Amino acid sequence: MQVKTNLTPFARLRTLPPGTSIITGGFWERKQTINRHVTLRHGYQMLEKAGNFDNFRVAAGLTQGKYKGLIFNDSDVYKWLEAVACDLALHPDAELEKTADDVISLLVTTQEKNGYLNSHFQTTGKERFSDLEYAHELYCAGHLIEAAIAHRQATGKHSLLEVARRFADHLDSVFGPDKHQGTSGHPEIELALVELYRETRERRYLDLALFFVNQRGQGKMRGFGRWGPAYHQDRVPIREAVEVEGHAVRQLYLNSGVTDLYLETGEQALLEAMLRLWQDMTTRKMYLTGGFGARHSGESFGEAHELPSRSAYCETCAAIAAMMWNWRMLLATGKPHFADILERSLYNGFLSGWSLDGRRFFYVNPLESLGRVERQEWYECACCPPNVMRQVATVGHYLATTSTEGIQIHHFTSARLAAAINGSQKVVLSLSTDYPWNGRIQVTVEETEGGPWILSLRIPAWSSNAQVSVNGRPAAEPAGGTYAMIERAWQPGDMIELDLPMTPRLIRAHPYVDDLRGCVAIERGPLVYCFEAIDQEAGLNLRHTSLSPEVRLQAHWRGDLLGGVVTVEADGLVSDLDNWTDLYLPQELAHVSQRPVRLIAVPYFAWANRGPGALRVWIPCQDSGWD
Amino acid sequence: MQVKTNLTPFARLRTLPPGTSIITGGFWERKQTINRHVTLRHGYQMLEKAGNFDNFRVAAGLTQGKYKGLIFNDSDVYKWLEAVACDLALHPDAELEKTADDVISLLVTTQEKNGYLNSHFQTTGKERFSDLEYAHELYCAGHLIEAAIAHRQATGKHSLLEVARRFADHLDSVFGPDKHQGTSGHPEIELALVELYRETRERRYLDLALFFVNQRGQGKMRGFGRWGPAYHQDRVPIREAVEVEGHAVRQLYLNSGVTDLYLETGEQALLEAMLRLWQDMTTRKMYLTGGFGARHSGESFGEAHELPSRSAYCETCAAIAAMMWNWRMLLATGKPHFADILERSLYNGFLSGWSLDGRRFFYVNPLESLGRVERQEWYECACCPPNVMRQVATVGHYLATTSTEGIQIHHFTSARLAAAINGSQKVVLSLSTDYPWNGRIQVTVEETEGGPWILSLRIPAWSSNAQVSVNGRPAAEPAGGTYAMIERAWQPGDMIELDLPMTPRLIRAHPYVDDLRGCVAIERGPLVYCFEAIDQEAGLNLRHTSLSPEVRLQAHWRGDLLGGVVTVEADGLVSDLDNWTDLYLPQELAHVSQRPVRLIAVPYFAWANRGPGALRVWIPCQDSGWD
Repeated sequence: MQVKTNLTPFARLRTLPPGTSIITGGFWERKQTINRHVTLRHGYQMLEKAGNFDNFRVAAGLTQGKYKGLIFNDSDVYKWLEAVACDLALHPDAELEKTADDVISLLVTTQEKNGYLNSHFQTTGKERFSDLEYAHELYCAGHLIEAAIAHRQATGKHSLLEVARRFADHLDSVFGPDKHQGTSGHPEIELALVELYRETRERRYLDLALFFVNQRGQGKMRGFGRWGPAYHQDRVPIREAVEVEGHAVRQLYLNSGVTDLYLETGEQALLEAMLRLWQDMTTRKMYLTGGFGARHSGESFGEAHELPSRSAYCETCAAIAAMMWNWRMLLATGKPHFADILERSLYNGFLSGWSLDGRRFFYVNPLESLGRVERQEWYECACCPPNVMRQVATVGHYLATTSTEGIQIHHFTSARLAAAINGSQKVVLSLSTDYPWNGRIQVTVEETEGGPWILSLRIPAWSSNAQVSVNGRPAAEPAGGTYAMIERAWQPGDMIELDLPMTPRLIRAHPYVDDLRGCVAIERGPLVYCFEAIDQEAGLNLRHTSLSPEVRLQAHWRGDLLGGVVTVEADGLVSDLDNWTDLYLPQELAHVSQRPVRLIAVPYFAWANRGPGALRVWIPCQDSGWD
Repeated sequence: MQVKTNLTPFARLRTLPPGTSIITGGFWERKQTINRHVTLRHGYQMLEKAGNFDNFRVAAGLTQGKYKGLIFNDSDVYKWLEAVACDLALHPDAELEKTADDVISLLVTTQEKNGYLNSHFQTTGKERFSDLEYAHELYCAGHLIEAAIAHRQATGKHSLLEVARRFADHLDSVFGPDKHQGTSGHPEIELALVELYRETRERRYLDLALFFVNQRGQGKMRGFGRWGPAYHQDRVPIREAVEVEGHAVRQLYLNSGVTDLYLETGEQALLEAMLRLWQDMTTRKMYLTGGFGARHSGESFGEAHELPSRSAYCETCAAIAAMMWNWRMLLATGKPHFADILERSLYNGFLSGWSLDGRRFFYVNPLESLGRVERQEWYECACCPPNVMRQVATVGHYLATTSTEGIQIHHFTSARLAAAINGSQKVVLSLSTDYPWNGRIQVTVEETEGGPWILSLRIPAWSSNAQVSVNGRPAAEPAGGTYAMIERAWQPGDMIELDLPMTPRLIRAHPYVDDLRGCVAIERGPLVYCFEAIDQEAGLNLRHTSLSPEVRLQAHWRGDLLGGVVTVEADGLVSDLDNWTDLYLPQELAHVSQRPVRLIAVPYFAWANRGPGALRVWIPCQDSGWD
């Protein structure tokens, strides 16, 4: 999931090299510890149990048997390997490294002489590349490549990278303008090939990525349901696209690959298309949680403003894919709103996909539940769990970037950053914060070389009354949705303090969102809040509940709850709907009585960790906010 | 679509025999005239153009060629034949009768010696009865049987009935407890076999219908998407069912057949199941228009209270199927609420499927449109158009019933009814009314035999302040949702007047319906109203529009509009949303200014007859109606 930009010509901002942006404490350090000690190991067991490794063993001729599970199950192994590699970059773990090496040996054994590697096609004997729309061969190859690069970067070993290169070379021998035509129904290969180009500097990988993108948009793919070829983003060429559509993860992986191509080629039409799609997505098709995909059918985006809460799809992988894309857009443009949306997905629609204990997952992340959905320890379609693992292991990648002028800090957690401004001026910073519970962030200059440089701190779009001080002296009162930029001949020991007041706030949706008419949601800092039935008075039906028009919100730290969270309390009303049984009533009969009730909201990401129970993020509040 | 109940033991009410309930003027006489002169003839041309007749010609060996169109295209021919037959029962038409006879001759030629008849299976050579879930063989057979009975009843000819009986006998030789197991994925055969039993009094047809119903609910069928076997109502046995689910038309055709079985067998468990499903459907899964099916995916019911307006499916066939079922429930119970729901579908969700000029159709009937949907002259999946034709031709069937005690009038249109109370006491009534535009209905006793009997007039659930007079003298002030029953030794020339004041009313939906929160709809009499952009001030965006909290509704007859309709005018507000581009905003920034506007509503059934344009049935109205 890394994006290596040291030689990327059109990156406005450059990523920090692997191993130079390390989370050292706080919220995300705890998450990474759970990932390491619980989730990665659980994932290995689940992959073994589901037969993912057996598929390779059968393909390699090591055992007898039939292919098990879904056609793209190889990719789950690759994502798990990538997650392990990214975690090894943070923390040595001999056991995990050995396990990964054993899996890699299995892959080496399975790979055919010509480089081909796909346990489904190898065990079933199906014709290769005969079902590019649905068979996920190139998708699996892409995840292999990503895993291999991460593994090489983390361990210095070339074992997996060699497998990936051989497969990539095979693909390059099969596909191309004068060779086999077509592209993958599920994008992923594009961004992987660009990254392989960055890793190897072999131009043909970049060319192949561009070929696969250019094959798309001719309406030739076998479509899906009402979407037709739009399901695979094949309705129009990407340079002409004006809206995100179809399968959400496909669209967002594609956009990540296209943005990667822009970063390397500077083709303006690609960036312009990406900016159009981003505008469409974030102003018409995004859940408050930074989740994407309104429809279960086709795991797809809905129409503009079609954002139902209860039937929301919001696949965990789509939030991850959106982060991948937003990160690349941030690198391409240097604009803070991409980091804002990344943060929205990270703390809400992504993190909700992972249980607090690290052993269970959500594939679908609705914003309302009547209490019937529950996290599962694995899924038949298990794309999300290993995607969660690699995302958590790589959160540190998203913290900061460098430019010719300085360092940009985009996300806030306790960390140590070792950066080289303009590729040469070495700086080490440490961050210390209790974010997201508390908006005070301390940045200490541990080491610095040379002359003045600019420290840029992202001021989230949600924030107001932000304050920056340097060495205890007020330095700026930057507006939300900007970077606070402080130029100075920084010295070791300099301390910058950023204060982002975290007053809970009420949010309204655009009036076009029918499902949210008359409703509000609660946010505090980067967190979206929700009401879970378990926190309310006994027997309270959340569907009968609203907020008082004059509601005041109060935040409280609750160390005893959900591993420690800030709750938000509010005055609400409960309606007596027990006698309202008709579906439609004349207005004069549609009356209910209400009584006051105290309501408690918890962070959305932490819901469904205490058994199944009712949930709602949006809640009616009769003050419409209109004049 | 007739239900012949003269010998049906468990019918509380009995239908009038074919040809004794004739519409003589007013709203439905005009509709039947358009059906006869335009739609039935258009239908024949479209069936010819789409290849439906060619399929039989190829199957019969009369021409060479390949099967064209969808696998169930035979059923469209059968429904068209049934529609023609039902129209011939109202009005002689030598040309239509000849055309139908020619089609029947083709069917006679196509039918195989053993009685089998299905042009898809005959032309493709596919194994018969090998795909009961999806191949619609039994569904097509059911429509053949319905058409045949209607044709015999209308014309006295046995030509088509003979074809149908031979196919039914073939099915009876193939399927049964000790023979081939299974049932049709798409119900229809069940109700058809019960009707064939009523027509022929051959018990084995009833037994076969019961066999097909009892095969259902074992979870064995190959399901569809998220629904699985529930798509075909195969999740649980019908006697255990507690909710309508899956494909809406399938559920409602099944329920019609199950209710038919109850009417003949008196099995209480079947009626109890039907009452449970009806309660679920009408209190949780019904659109205001009497349309059914919230989801495009699977053409299916949604979850409870999932009733989005813009993405509503509301297939025209589902409204028709709901009328079929409600009519049977009315016959089984004598309760007025079944007739109320039938009326809701008839004047709204059904009639919207047919253009005013009779040449175009809607398959899907949403309650909100941004202006991109348009009626079509035919559909590749053309189940709805011929279903509209047979429904319009049979509206007269639904007007009245008899019992041991008298006559019940359920629906209001100018008509002549010749009934036999308790099977023997002959009575002729005439009805005269401008319903649905006006609520005054005049019933004249034209002829009557013997002693006193009870005239029952349905007082719709929507009505208040209804008044009944007899020979000019006030006789009753009955409540809505009841039958006004007047017992009297009626004499020829007696005149009963029913006045149902048609004050427009505002309707609210249950608070559980998220999509309709804070909204109202307008109804007047049996009609649901809607706002179409074309009737409003130039350039008005309906999505920016709401009703004033203190709105007063005013009805006006507009003879110049849409063939003559009553419009409803209301004071509204237009919000300035042009500068609100964010999807989510803090409440304090979510303000809009509003200005007053005059809004005009037209009957929902008449929408989309002036080109594509925006529509909305539900509209925000800030007075929530809550205390």
